[in-house]
Order: sequence, then C-alpha cells, then structure tokens
Amino acid sequence: MKIKIIGLGKMGLNLVSNLVANKHEVVCFDINDSQREAAKKLGATPTDTLDEFFALDTEQTINWLMLPSGKITEDMIKTCHEKLNAGDILIDGGNSKFADSVHHYHFLKEKDIHFLDVGTSGGMSGARDGACMMVGGEQAIFNQIEELFEDLCVEKGYLYCGEAGSGHYLKMVHNGIEYGMMQAIGEGFNLLHHSRFDYDLEQVARVFNNGSVVRSWLMELTEKALKENPTMSGISGQVPSSGEGKWTVEEMLEMQQSAPVITQSLLTRYASMDTEKYGEKVIASLRNQFGGHEIPKK
Amino acid sequence: MKIKIIGLGKMGLNLVSNLVANKHEVVCFDINDSQREAAKKLGATPTDTLDEFFALDTEQTINWLMLPSGKITEDMIKTCHEKLNAGDILIDGGNSKFADSVHHYHFLKEKDIHFLDVGTSGGMSGARDGACMMVGGEQAIFNQIEELFEDLCVEKGYLYCGEAGSGHYLKMVHNGIEYGMMQAIGEGFNLLHHSRFDYDLEQVARVFNNGSVVRSWLMELTEKALKENPTMSGISGQVPSSGEGKWTVEEMLEMQQSAPVITQSLLTRYASMDTEKYGEKVIASLRNQFGGHEIPKK
Repeated sequence: MKIKIIGLGKMGLNLVSNLVANKHEVVCFDINDSQREAAKKLGATPTDTLDEFFALDTEQTINWLMLPSGKITEDMIKTCHEKLNAGDILIDGGNSKFADSVHHYHFLKEKDIHFLDVGTSGGMSGARDGACMMVGGEQAIFNQIEELFEDLCVEKGYLYCGEAGSGHYLKMVHNGIEYGMMQAIGEGFNLLHHSRFDYDLEQVARVFNNGSVVRSWLMELTEKALKENPTMSGISGQVPSSGEGKWTVEEMLEMQQSAPVITQSLLTRYASMDTEKYGEKVIASLRNQFGGHEIPKK
Repeated sequence: MKIKIIGLGKMGLNLVSNLVANKHEVVCFDINDSQREAAKKLGATPTDTLDEFFALDTEQTINWLMLPSGKITEDMIKTCHEKLNAGDILIDGGNSKFADSVHHYHFLKEKDIHFLDVGTSGGMSGARDGACMMVGGEQAIFNQIEELFEDLCVEKGYLYCGEAGSGHYLKMVHNGIEYGMMQAIGEGFNLLHHSRFDYDLEQVARVFNNGSVVRSWLMELTEKALKENPTMSGISGQVPSSGEGKWTVEEMLEMQQSAPVITQSLLTRYASMDTEKYGEKVIASLRNQFGGHEIPKK
C-alpha cells in the first residue's frame, strides 16, 4: 500500500521504518528538515512542503497523523479537512483525547473523509518492530486497510474496538493502567532502596522478570534502567504526564466509578512536579502555630 | 539430592512434581491423607506420621516447609527445632513475615540448624514448571544447595538476597507491587466495563498482551479469566488478602516512606470485604441530618 505520514518524531520515524520494512510505499512530511532527512534515509519519500505532500496523490489516499496530541493534531486535522478529498482515509495514530476523535470523525464525515482513531502502544521499539494498535471508526474502513495493521503490529496486536473514539478511549484506559502499574513498581523499588536489607536492585528486577507474578514489560524496562543507571543519578525525580492519566480520571468522575490507584498515580506525578510545596509550607506553619513544632527552613 | 518436604498443599504438591521431574528424591509429609496419596502418585515417598518423617534420615537433611504462614509454620519450625540435628538445613518456602524469619534464623542457629527464608513467586504453575525464588540466609548454605534453586526455578529465576529475612522481605515487597498492579488492572477494566463504548473485554486483554506497554503475566491471567468467565458471573467481588500487602504497608510506615498506591490497593481489598458498610451508613445519615438528603434504604 501507499501510506502518507505526517509527523516524523520518535513514533512517526519508527512507524516509517516499520512500513518500509513491510514493503509499503511511504510519502511523508515533517516541519523539521532533519526528520525529513532521517525518513529519506529509511527509504521513504519526504516532501519539502505540506502543499507538495497533499498534491502528490489525490485519490483514495491513506493518511496517517503521528503528531503530538492537542492543538498540533487539531490544526492538522483542519488542514486535512481542507486538503483531502471524499473517499480519502485519515488516521490519527497519536494520543488524542477520545472526545476530540469523536468530534473529528463527524467533522471529516461532512466531506466524506473516513476517519479512524488509532491508539498506539508499545513505545518507540513497538512502532518500529511491531506495535499494539486499538482502532476506532467505521468497520468497513477498518476492513479495507486491515492488512496495514496486520503488518505494523505484533501477532494478535491490533483490535477493531468499535465506533469512532473507541480506539483512543481504550488507549486512554490502557495508559491509566500503565500509570498504576508504574507507580506500584516505583513504590516497591523505593521501599527496597530504603530497606533494612542491602539489595542489588538491578538483580531484584532481573529475578522479578524470571518466573514471578509481576513479570512484565514494564519490569523489563525497570531492569534495563537500573542496569544503565544503578544509582538513578542525574534524574530529578519529577514525573511529567501528557494527558491520558488525567483523562482516565476525568472519565472515572464522569462515570462515577472509583479508580483510586489510577487517580493516586496521577496525583503522585503532580506532587513530583511541585517543587514549591506551598501546601506543605502551610501545614508546617500550622504545626508551628498550635504545637510550637519547628518549621523546617531552607 | 534428597529433599524432605512438609506441606503438600497447592504449592507443596507442585514443588514435589517439579523436584521429581528434576530427578531429586523426595520424602514428604502432610496431615491430610489425600495430599500424601497425591504426592505418592507424583513419585515421592510420603510418610504416614511426622515422627516417621523425621526418623527417615538423620544427617545433613534438607527440609523444605511449604505451609500456610503464621501459626502453622511457626509451630512446625518449633517442631523442627526439636527434631532436626546440627548441620541440617531448614527452608521456609512459604509467605512468612520477614521479621518472623529473622527470628527463626536465630532460634534455629542455637542448635546449628541452618535456616533459609525463600520467597516463592510464580503461583502454582511456577512451583510445578519453574518458579521464581528469593533466598535469604547464610551465603555458604545457599551455595551448598544452589543446584536445587537452579533446578526448581526458570532460568535466572532465583536470587540470593543476603542475610536472614531478606528473601521473605523481597517477596513481601514483590507482593506489594503485585497488589498495585492488580488494582490498576481491576480499575481499568471496571472503567471499560462501564464505558460509553461496547468493548469485548477478553479481546481487550488479548490486544493488551500483544505489543502494548502493559503486557504482563497478570494481563495474561486477566485474558484467561475473561475467556473462562466473560461476565464475571458467580464472583462476589470480595478480595481477601493474606498478609504481604499489609506487611508492605506496615514497613512503609516503619520506614516513613510513601507508597500510596500499594496502600490504596490494600484498603480497596478491605473495603471489598466490608458488606456492612457502617461508615457509609453514618455518612448517608449525616447528609440526611444537614441537607435532608434521602437515606438509601435496603
């Protein structure tokens, strides 16, 4: 197949590499010269401008966005709405909010452009060597290009989830689970780091990965990280987040369901970003006010 | 080697099967006739009484306890203290509290009985086909019988952790991580169950297991559970706990470290066991008192 990709970042470039390896023809664009150059080296055909990208083919094209979620994806979908033609397929393979994807589906439907929301998991190596993809949109459109998912994913690694939005929704919950699992691993290793016994934590992760109940890809990454940096030196301890955890918690509230561990994983990340600790300063001041407890000073 | 096992429950019997398959000679005992019978069928030599068990060999024996933690293990270790001889090795392969294992080490040391605390992970299939073992105790004793762990565990699936107690301590934290991971999976699938989209949750677990970031043995068990019982019918929703999660939280408090997700996983289990909901009744009554909100009645 001929696939047109916009966005050649960490995920996009690896996707190009995967597609080329599977003998698909890849036309692509990125605002960044060096990324276009890298795609060319991988065997794809980058265009110098976005206009060229859209001019290159005009019928029944399959377009794949691999862009940061939010405004950048939003703007590009508006451009695609303008530039693509009826019958074209547009895939959003990024981490867009499912409600946005529902909206994009209807927006593109106006011009008979077929939209699929594809949640992509497996990280950079997955995008390159075999990913996990969760697809939302019209079944007929999915069926039409199912071969593509077969090629890009590991065996049994894709799922047609249902109507528009269901692909990104499932990816959102997947990331919620991921937040919780990572937090559990972080807390466990922190306890071991402060433990009364003297563990070699790389060896601990290694033994956890071989035959234990907690063996998992995340534990394998833990082992790798501890091997590369056993003392975690040079790392600030802040954990940013990019939306999916927050959206999972928002959806939990919307559905009035309880997901305390996923919520707490998100809050722990927020707390890790808070270098000011204003709330804690208030608490320390209160302890001082009523009990004369010393306020720890900088 | 010749291994003497006490306790032929879910884990013990599978351990017997594993040892026999690895051509070790197994003498064993369980208070339950049917378990002894089952061990015999697996190729082990059960004794009819505990006295016979201890009488069968008397020098340099390797004894393996696979008993429920707490009083049953405690009592058997006292019996072993009485019946075993200087130079014998006693292994506690159960889920004992690490502080108890430290105590048991010193208690048995009085008589020069060598004690190893072995945290065993991997469940019943692991015990049978290849487990994950975390060993605490004297390095020299571990070295003496290392071959045994090599045979019983998957490749790279055992670790000598350090002094007495460190094996069960690591298993405790392992289970804490396990609590958090399981809770994250439970919360995620609950959200999907109540979602605005109509997911086939067995297929969701299947796709999560192929190429995604959350792929793990626990997710494989989730897939299996949903395949066997897609509607989770006949399951009460209560989740018992057997100690390790609680001990992890106790250790977190002792070390003054924060492990909110592991803690919350434990509390969620406790809440699941609470059919009385007395606290919630008080809250509903308060809402009624100040705001006239109706109290939901049985």
